Amino acid sequence: MDIGLATPLQKDLHQSTSAIDSLTLLVSDDLARVNDLIIKRMDSAVSMIPDIAGYLIHSGGKRLRPLITLAAARLCGYHGKDHIKLAASVEFIHTATLLHDDVVDESALRRGHDSANVVWGNQASVLVGDYLFSRSFSLMVETGNLKVLDILSRTSSIIAEGEVLQLVSSADMKTSKKTYMEIVMCKTAALFSAAARVGAVIADRPSHEEEALDAFGRNFGIAFQLVDDALDYAGLQEQLGKTLGDDFREGKITLPVVLAYARGTDEERAFWRRTMEKPAQQENDFSQAVELLALHRSIKDTVDLAQDYAQKARDALMVLPNNCYRRSLDDLIAFCVDRAY
Amino acid sequence: MDIGLATPLQKDLHQSTSAIDSLTLLVSDDLARVNDLIIKRMDSAVSMIPDIAGYLIHSGGKRLRPLITLAAARLCGYHGKDHIKLAASVEFIHTATLLHDDVVDESALRRGHDSANVVWGNQASVLVGDYLFSRSFSLMVETGNLKVLDILSRTSSIIAEGEVLQLVSSADMKTSKKTYMEIVMCKTAALFSAAARVGAVIADRPSHEEEALDAFGRNFGIAFQLVDDALDYAGLQEQLGKTLGDDFREGKITLPVVLAYARGTDEERAFWRRTMEKPAQQENDFSQAVELLALHRSIKDTVDLAQDYAQKARDALMVLPNNCYRRSLDDLIAFCVDRAY
Repeated sequence: MDIGLATPLQKDLHQSTSAIDSLTLLVSDDLARVNDLIIKRMDSAVSMIPDIAGYLIHSGGKRLRPLITLAAARLCGYHGKDHIKLAASVEFIHTATLLHDDVVDESALRRGHDSANVVWGNQASVLVGDYLFSRSFSLMVETGNLKVLDILSRTSSIIAEGEVLQLVSSADMKTSKKTYMEIVMCKTAALFSAAARVGAVIADRPSHEEEALDAFGRNFGIAFQLVDDALDYAGLQEQLGKTLGDDFREGKITLPVVLAYARGTDEERAFWRRTMEKPAQQENDFSQAVELLALHRSIKDTVDLAQDYAQKARDALMVLPNNCYRRSLDDLIAFCVDRAY
Repeated sequence: MDIGLATPLQKDLHQSTSAIDSLTLLVSDDLARVNDLIIKRMDSAVSMIPDIAGYLIHSGGKRLRPLITLAAARLCGYHGKDHIKLAASVEFIHTATLLHDDVVDESALRRGHDSANVVWGNQASVLVGDYLFSRSFSLMVETGNLKVLDILSRTSSIIAEGEVLQLVSSADMKTSKKTYMEIVMCKTAALFSAAARVGAVIADRPSHEEEALDAFGRNFGIAFQLVDDALDYAGLQEQLGKTLGDDFREGKITLPVVLAYARGTDEERAFWRRTMEKPAQQENDFSQAVELLALHRSIKDTVDLAQDYAQKARDALMVLPNNCYRRSLDDLIAFCVDRAY
C-alpha cells in the first residue's frame, strides 16, 4: 500500500519493539512493585471493581506512562519509594480515562479485546473509572508532596478539558489542525509530561531538569499520538493492537483526515463529511479514504510532524544526566517513531 | 393518605424550612465567596464545561454540603480562608457525582428540571463530571493541608465504591437492609461527614472535636437520606423538588421497599419483583406500593430510624463549643427530620 511516504522504511518489527522491552527490563524491579501496588489498590469488597479494573489493567497495556515515571525518577538519581506510588497513580488516571473514553466513543474494542463497557455496561465503566480516579489521588496524597499533587491535579483537569473539547469537535469536519493539536496536547501529552516531570520533583532536582523532563514527556506524547493516528490508516495490523481503520469507522477526526480535508476538492470534502460526520460507511470507503490521504500526502506530513516532536523530545533529554535511563528514554522515542515505517 | 405513621404531625412547612435559611444567612458572606469561587473554577475555554456545570450548580441546589463545611469551620473558631476552597471543593464533588449518577440511573429529571444528560447527552455529563472532580482536587491541593487531602481523597473512593455497590444491587429485591444502609453510608453519609470534619481539621482542633463533627455529618447524612427515601412515597410534591414516586418508577430500591419486601407475603413479593426488578409498571402500581408500605409500617419505620440517626447527630454536636453555629447545625437536623411529618 502506497501511503505517500517518500522513502518508506520497513524496519524489523522485533528490533523496534525492543526499546520498550529493554526499558521494561531496566526498571523491572520497580515495575513489579508498581504492578503489586496496582493490584492492591484496585481491590474492593465490591467485586465488580477489581473485576473491571483488572480486566483493563491486564489486557495488554504497555505500561508506557508508569515506565516513564520510573525511568525519570531513576534518571534523576532518586532512591526513595514514592516513584512506585506515582507510577501506579499515573496508570490509574490513564485507566480511568480509557474507561470513560470508551463510554463516550461507544467503542466496542480496546487493544483487540471487548471494551469494558461492552462486557459490563456503560454504567459500570463510568463508576469504576471514578473509583480508579479517586484511588489515583489517594496514592498521590500518600507521597505527601504538594508539588506533585499540584502537577497531577492540574493534569487531570487538562485531560478532562481535552476530552470535552474532542467531544465538541467530534463529527465536525471544520475541526482545524490547531484544535486537533490542542486536543492531543490535553488528552495525551499532558499525562506523559506530568508522568516524566514528577520524577524530577520527587528527586528534588533543579527546575531546569523538571522542565526538561516535562518537555520530553510532552513532545514524546504528541509524537506518540500522531504516529498512532497515522498507523490507523497505514499500519500493519499486528503492530496496532487494534483493527486498521478503527478511527475511520468511529468517525474519529485525526490529523491525517484534517489535512486531507483542508487540501481536498469539493467532492472529496463531501466524501469526508459523509463518512466522518454521520458515519454510515460503505464497503469501499476505507480504501478510498486511504487513497485520498496518500494523494494529499497527509500520512507523510503527519509522520513528519511526529518526527519534529520526537526530535524536540530528544533535545529536551540532552540537559539531563547521561545515564542508562536517559539512553533508554532516548531509544523509546526512536521506537515510537519507527513504528510508522 | 395514611402512610402508617402513628401520630402524623403536619408542621408548618415555612417554619421547618427556616432552619436552612437561617444557616444560609448566618454564613452568607462566606457562602457568597464560595459561589464566586465555584463560578471562577468551573470556567473553561471549552464553553460546554461552564454551560453544564452552571446549569447544575444554579438549578436550585440547597448548597447543604458547603453550608456544613462553612458552619463547621466557624463553629471551631476558624478565621482563615481555606474553608471557602473546601466548601467549593465539596460542592464540586457532589455536583460531579450527580452528573454521573444521572447517567447511571438514566434519570430524566433532577430537582424538577431536565437532567444535564437529557439536555447535553450522557457523553458530556461523564466528561464534565470528570472535569469538576479534578477541579475539586485542585482546590483541596491549594489548601496545602495533607490531612484534608487524605480525608477528601478517601471520601471520593468511598463514594465511588458506594455507587458501584448500588449498581450491583439495583433491580435486585434480595438487597438486604444491611447492604442498603452500606450504600447510604458510602453514597451520602461519607461526603457529609468529610464536609463537617474538614472544618475542625483546618481550625486545628483536637481529635475528639474532629470526630464529633465527623459523627454529626455521618449521622445527619444517613437521617437526611432516609427521610428522602420516605418522602418519595409519602411527601408533599412541593417539598420534594422532584416528582412523588420517582424512586419507584426508576426501580430504585430504598429502605421502605426493602422493609415491605422482607415483611410481605409471596404475592406481595411478586408485586415488588415485577415493579422493581424490570420496571414495566401499570397505572395503579404506585398507589398499591404506597398501600403495601403503609400496611407493613415501612415508612414509619424508615422515619423512626432516621430519627435515631438524627438523635446521634445531635448528641455528637454536644461536645463542641456551644455557639450560634452549633445551634444552627442543631436546627438543621430538626429541619431535616421534620420534613417527614
